[in-house]
Amino acid sequence: MPPQSGHNPTARATPVSILRATAAGLSAHGDSLATEEPLEIQLGYEKRLGVRVSRVVSVTMRTPGNDAELAAGFLFGEGLVHERSQVLGIAPAGENAVRVDLADGVEVDLRSLERHFYTTSSCGVCGKSSIEALGIARPVVLPADGPVMDFRTVLGLPDMLREKQAVFERTGGLHGAALFEADGRLISVREDVGRHNAVDKVIGEQFLAGGTPLSRAALVVSGRASFELMQKALVAGIPILVAVGAPSSLAVGVARRFGATLLGFVRDGRINVYSGAHRLREAFPTPPTTRV
Amino acid sequence: MPPQSGHNPTARATPVSILRATAAGLSAHGDSLATEEPLEIQLGYEKRLGVRVSRVVSVTMRTPGNDAELAAGFLFGEGLVHERSQVLGIAPAGENAVRVDLADGVEVDLRSLERHFYTTSSCGVCGKSSIEALGIARPVVLPADGPVMDFRTVLGLPDMLREKQAVFERTGGLHGAALFEADGRLISVREDVGRHNAVDKVIGEQFLAGGTPLSRAALVVSGRASFELMQKALVAGIPILVAVGAPSSLAVGVARRFGATLLGFVRDGRINVYSGAHRLREAFPTPPTTRV
Repeated sequence: MPPQSGHNPTARATPVSILRATAAGLSAHGDSLATEEPLEIQLGYEKRLGVRVSRVVSVTMRTPGNDAELAAGFLFGEGLVHERSQVLGIAPAGENAVRVDLADGVEVDLRSLERHFYTTSSCGVCGKSSIEALGIARPVVLPADGPVMDFRTVLGLPDMLREKQAVFERTGGLHGAALFEADGRLISVREDVGRHNAVDKVIGEQFLAGGTPLSRAALVVSGRASFELMQKALVAGIPILVAVGAPSSLAVGVARRFGATLLGFVRDGRINVYSGAHRLREAFPTPPTTRV
Repeated sequence: MPPQSGHNPTARATPVSILRATAAGLSAHGDSLATEEPLEIQLGYEKRLGVRVSRVVSVTMRTPGNDAELAAGFLFGEGLVHERSQVLGIAPAGENAVRVDLADGVEVDLRSLERHFYTTSSCGVCGKSSIEALGIARPVVLPADGPVMDFRTVLGLPDMLREKQAVFERTGGLHGAALFEADGRLISVREDVGRHNAVDKVIGEQFLAGGTPLSRAALVVSGRASFELMQKALVAGIPILVAVGAPSSLAVGVARRFGATLLGFVRDGRINVYSGAHRLREAFPTPPTTRV
């Protein structure tokens, strides 16, 4: 039974009737919820010369909208595809399913698929130093120096993301992810109940437009920065990740290992620099004595 | 390379040196991050009479601590085990790995395992009405009426959870999950970088103590309520889920379908009742005219 009979499974927000309890009593209200629906991602590919097969590679709980971008971003982030030309086409495959057809001859690493089934990011990590063993889907080469962002530009990014997040204000339930140029111009913004999906959508859009690697861009996320989000940024070649909230220890470890810039807790006129301070323009009276 | 050389992979918080950028310049600070490390969950079981095998069933990115509870809660939530007696023992299996040995004769549904690899919660949902098709791991029978909680008791739960969350205040990076009696007494609280892990830990502890189903308890989560968290509550027989933040549309749909009570946005003296208002004590001047 959906939240109410007028439920539309393709809408990003779902209207619902609720009760609100206060000290004065219960009262009926209309409310708006972030829509969460499953999406099955199917991969169609040439198994051997002339023989095409299809298999389900993921079912993710997502907010409907930009499903093709989500599917493309997911496959790109997992290292299953690297270039736009490897994708023949993406089309709906029934309700809450999308099919990605790969070009003939594109080799699919099924071990990579299986690895995903164990977790979002890693496998076979037991008994080893975790950061060393956690596989990034594709060797990452970030530009050593650039791009460089102004302190004040970075400070303004969370507000710009919030302004562009259409559904969040109504539902309080959506994560946002946005890509910016180093000078602060917005490239694109996407939202989802799953933070990894929001990132897959915004990167997937650029992948489909032939815009990856995104070596001049900054990725901004509305919440915390986990290993998984840092990994997705690195696979896309994005040198700067800005989190409104806190990063995890592993996100910082991976950022330092690959020379990425990781900024967090961007609020109240200050920025925490966890890694890669050289990409933050040093227009300060006091030069830093410590580098991270 | 870990965040710093003193890195301890078993600590819940990781100390790290960072730079803080303000308009006055950059300065070095010590900071504390929520620890994120992979955990490989291995399942040991009797494949056929007398033949024991072991396989990896999940790698999850988690905050170290309470790994046995996390593993037990994960297997329970996935429907792989239902009763304490099915678990022979749980032991560390190297760094960042834990092995759960099942008692001889306990049947393992490998399809259930494979289903998990597709997603945290569901598989084969394409082309069908999603809530109908999303499998709950085990048929859920909640107590029809009870337990009943006082409005003011519910209002106080988020603050009690925050008080008990030891690491959050320092790192800003951990989700909390807590179990409460209906009268507001705390049963247990756990934290993790992953909200699903925090819930697995707190439920897993009760499972290992023989305390499931938790048909008199309320589960409180620090953030938003997704389908996945609602599902975990239902599998554990928990009739009341309280989220500090917003629920998703699917969490509400599933709660209504199974007759669970779902409360959200508990703050500023008010509670949003998304489902099951009959478990919220109606000590109000105005009786409600609408039920949800």
